[in-house]
Amino acid sequence: MELQLALDLVDIPQAKVLVKEVEAYIDIVEIGTPVVINEGLRAVKEIKEAFPHLKVLADLKIMDAGGYEVMKASEAGADIITVLGVSDNKTIQGAVEEARKQNRKIMVDMINVKDIEGRAREIDTFGVDYICVHSGYDHQADGKNSFEELAAIKRVVKHAKTAIAGGIKLDTLPEVIQANPDLVIVGGGITGHENRTFAAAAMQTLIKQGV
Amino acid sequence: MELQLALDLVDIPQAKVLVKEVEAYIDIVEIGTPVVINEGLRAVKEIKEAFPHLKVLADLKIMDAGGYEVMKASEAGADIITVLGVSDNKTIQGAVEEARKQNRKIMVDMINVKDIEGRAREIDTFGVDYICVHSGYDHQADGKNSFEELAAIKRVVKHAKTAIAGGIKLDTLPEVIQANPDLVIVGGGITGHENRTFAAAAMQTLIKQGV
Repeated sequence: MELQLALDLVDIPQAKVLVKEVEAYIDIVEIGTPVVINEGLRAVKEIKEAFPHLKVLADLKIMDAGGYEVMKASEAGADIITVLGVSDNKTIQGAVEEARKQNRKIMVDMINVKDIEGRAREIDTFGVDYICVHSGYDHQADGKNSFEELAAIKRVVKHAKTAIAGGIKLDTLPEVIQANPDLVIVGGGITGHENRTFAAAAMQTLIKQGV
Repeated sequence: MELQLALDLVDIPQAKVLVKEVEAYIDIVEIGTPVVINEGLRAVKEIKEAFPHLKVLADLKIMDAGGYEVMKASEAGADIITVLGVSDNKTIQGAVEEARKQNRKIMVDMINVKDIEGRAREIDTFGVDYICVHSGYDHQADGKNSFEELAAIKRVVKHAKTAIAGGIKLDTLPEVIQANPDLVIVGGGITGHENRTFAAAAMQTLIKQGV
């Protein structure tokens, strides 16, 4: 089980400071959609250059032009690129095809997919690397979580790794670990913690011990 | 009926050259999703500053954090911001709420929405300014078009303006005009034309004459 730090509400200098604090405890740094929108792919490039030993995920939430967007994110140094589960099959397939050429990985973000189980079964046949259940910011406001969705995709996904994102904090992590995803994505649970290094270290410990 | 130029495969200097060539004939410049991803909101800011008399649309294709993203795009000078029709209702509603505060407009991009008519009816009640039917790049490869979708939303939308995007060229524009959207969005039909000024001028003429 791996740990991904999602950076959403920072500029590039703030991102570097944050990653520096927790780099020993995380596997993947996510350049979140708001950072990409604000700063462009330059954010991906600068973080990958500053932390070449970490994998960098570019959270593009691709909805169209899958091949082109994956090519550009690969040029910027992204190791993993996200595509939306609600996008056209051809968009996901185009993203996977380009990722294979570039030796990168594709994560499908299932945010707001209605038939999670059916769509995950379908997407799993496209050769994507990760399928991620995700309660968005706007969705979390409703108090929903993704455990049922994770269970649903684990029932049907045979090839892709599974990931879970959305509102995970240190006190909810044990429940997440029990649900046994391959990747846990944490944003505010680390960046909003009063001691970020402690929070990341504690999360890594729990993940490694499987508790 | 208005005309929007969509810029997708350019950097900021190229975008300025292109807009300069056609600025007399268009109403709105769209900073397309690939440009936003590559360059960030700086692209919106620079184009708005260079062409303050034109409206600028930031094609963020927002899928989450509607209020936050609209705030950032507004800061950059966007007049219109896009949100995905496949997103959560709260995302669209949050975007509309923030746009009202900032005196900006929201366009919902219906790309890959399955029940176009039902979803348009619902979204129209959220107070969005435009609802846009859109055959994406990856979708156009299938040879599909959006005329039926435009007819479907025109049947049910009572408040929002309607827009159509995806593969529109000079030779298909008359058919689009007959379908009577409030806004026609053209990308490659202008940017890929051998004489861009001519293409934009001819499109404006056809639109004004309603033919």
